[in-house]
Amino acid sequence: MIDLEQLRDCYVSTPSKIVLLVVDGLGGLAHPDTGRSELETAHIPNLDAMARESACGLTIPVLPGVAPGSGPGHLALFGYDPLKHMIGRGALEALGIDMPLEPGDVAARGNFCTVDAGGNLVDRRAGRIPTALSAPLCERLDRIEIPGVELDVVPVQDYRFVLRLRGKGISEAITETDPQQSGVPALPAKALRPEAESTAGIVNSFVDQARQLLSEEERANMILLRGFAQLPDLPPMGDVYRLNPAGIAAYPMYRGLATVCGMNVIHTGTTFGDEVKTLHQVYAGHDFFFIHYKPADAAGEDGDFDAKVARLEELDPFIPQIRELDPDVFIVAGDHATPAIMASHSWHPVPFMLHSKLTRGEGVDGFNEKSCGLGSVGTIQATQAMLLALSHAGKLTKYGP
Amino acid sequence: MIDLEQLRDCYVSTPSKIVLLVVDGLGGLAHPDTGRSELETAHIPNLDAMARESACGLTIPVLPGVAPGSGPGHLALFGYDPLKHMIGRGALEALGIDMPLEPGDVAARGNFCTVDAGGNLVDRRAGRIPTALSAPLCERLDRIEIPGVELDVVPVQDYRFVLRLRGKGISEAITETDPQQSGVPALPAKALRPEAESTAGIVNSFVDQARQLLSEEERANMILLRGFAQLPDLPPMGDVYRLNPAGIAAYPMYRGLATVCGMNVIHTGTTFGDEVKTLHQVYAGHDFFFIHYKPADAAGEDGDFDAKVARLEELDPFIPQIRELDPDVFIVAGDHATPAIMASHSWHPVPFMLHSKLTRGEGVDGFNEKSCGLGSVGTIQATQAMLLALSHAGKLTKYGP
Repeated sequence: MIDLEQLRDCYVSTPSKIVLLVVDGLGGLAHPDTGRSELETAHIPNLDAMARESACGLTIPVLPGVAPGSGPGHLALFGYDPLKHMIGRGALEALGIDMPLEPGDVAARGNFCTVDAGGNLVDRRAGRIPTALSAPLCERLDRIEIPGVELDVVPVQDYRFVLRLRGKGISEAITETDPQQSGVPALPAKALRPEAESTAGIVNSFVDQARQLLSEEERANMILLRGFAQLPDLPPMGDVYRLNPAGIAAYPMYRGLATVCGMNVIHTGTTFGDEVKTLHQVYAGHDFFFIHYKPADAAGEDGDFDAKVARLEELDPFIPQIRELDPDVFIVAGDHATPAIMASHSWHPVPFMLHSKLTRGEGVDGFNEKSCGLGSVGTIQATQAMLLALSHAGKLTKYGP
Repeated sequence: MIDLEQLRDCYVSTPSKIVLLVVDGLGGLAHPDTGRSELETAHIPNLDAMARESACGLTIPVLPGVAPGSGPGHLALFGYDPLKHMIGRGALEALGIDMPLEPGDVAARGNFCTVDAGGNLVDRRAGRIPTALSAPLCERLDRIEIPGVELDVVPVQDYRFVLRLRGKGISEAITETDPQQSGVPALPAKALRPEAESTAGIVNSFVDQARQLLSEEERANMILLRGFAQLPDLPPMGDVYRLNPAGIAAYPMYRGLATVCGMNVIHTGTTFGDEVKTLHQVYAGHDFFFIHYKPADAAGEDGDFDAKVARLEELDPFIPQIRELDPDVFIVAGDHATPAIMASHSWHPVPFMLHSKLTRGEGVDGFNEKSCGLGSVGTIQATQAMLLALSHAGKLTKYGP
């Protein structure tokens, strides 16, 4: 698979501008009653009109048949081979709450959970307690001290938090404590390599102290830790592509992804409308913009077909607001499909369209899975999307004499 | 990407014959006034008729979005992964003028140029002086002697020449002297690796002596050197595919490409008509023929839509002359697109058709970008074209038991 560094000598800096709108969980599948997918069902006149003027296709996020998480799905669209580069869950979570990770730091995603008197899990999410309840508990855990390591606990949202371990010789090579089922106790962390023994000991000691500190709580009386991970050392996309990239995302995890890829993450509000306003405000100062639309994925994950249709319809009026900026290249893509009938991420190729002066209408009649499958871009690897973006913007020169 | 050596055990020698016509810069884009591409505009009844009887598709020369030079574009069609194999500019230029390169030789592309009294570049191409003027200057430079190296200077065309360095320890790992802009002096060659220090010194000494020898010239009073390169060590396609391949090309660079791929380059004339005559003359003696049509690319590079249409129309009557030979497989392909509206090589997938007894008409109505996009071959990597050629000629046996 192509990786962004392979054509390193061909990237050139130009004043042209690229906007990449990633609609999270964009693709879908037909509703059994109507035979039409979420995109085919939605009234999305602006996306449909843009498809008629664009080069259309489908992207394969990782490989045919492989459903990606948010990390690989986005890395691929930015041109990083997702089979070569991986961002661990803990690191992604930490970045998403603007918790700095230095080289060597290990972060884990934590859940508050409920255990019974025998220590067996009753609820892996502690009744989804709200942030208002979990934040003070995080403060309590944050005061735990273990010699030889600096420990920090920061709330994320509801029952979720991040644990960061900082110190000499801290390793990410330890197992998770979440058994992924109820009725059994939390697992001890185990070293996956000899040099991780001390980190496993630290983590188990932390969990023991947490259990004691939380023992009087009704719901959040224990914790689970997973996704121990260091920050991967990704080549910054700005350096490689010779871009000055801006990342605009209302949701923490996507700001984290943008950060780890070397984008300048721009402060924005909590809605997509805020993101579009931010795009307008900073448009002059950058030449590449990643802008992220989350709600379609959330509705798909909930298995709510009508809600996903509604979220796509809510996106549609923003398309003219972005096109107003007249970017040299405007791409609408998705990190993966989240078909409502599956209520999960899936492997299906994802609709893709690229608008530029070097493309023209090609007879595709709308923005959906079927129409995009007939477009001139064909079905490509998501890692190739950036090559198309750059070439249509004049930022990718001839390969070889 | 597939590379020709990957299926090495599946290639078999048979008497069947393959003709691969490479139309340089074949693909195009729609003229803004008509919405029709060069191929769609041209009156090409023979190519259209052949498309109706062929398996059609599109080829991606390197990767989506990547515009290739002539080297990678041709290597890919011959089955060499262009991201793995690269022919440097100097080596390609040397081969194109039948200047032998032995292993270890380094060749550079030279330009005569004009500098002002302060040594700053005024014209990087010395007013495009004609060969009649540059050839005697090359003879003058050819007499430069530097201990420890054999130096040869041979004119190419107009202001261009080749410098060949032969000797022990000569390295290609040195920087170019062409600053790619006017108003500044030529750059000194610098070693990119410690072992290239002596070569950089030789080249800088050569440039100094050239400057002195040319100091009285009005336009060509200095030189620029770029693309220092050795010949790559490509596996010969005849050996790998078990073919006896012939290369027929009126233009030097394409004879050079055929040579480096291990084809037998056949002496021919200066026009495509000469090439077709040569094809007829040597048809009995080989089983694979690469025949090259250049004029379409040149017109595209000039940004002359009508000229490109005319060049395609001039190719058309030769199609029956080739089909007369009744080859088992006759492919018409392009090394890359050269859309006149871009006046440059581009990344767009290139029309492709394969005629053989094992294919039949599939409803495609002509030979152009849109029709080929609907063909049964689909959009494939150009490196896969040879697999199709060989299989349809019975020269590629079953893979695996």
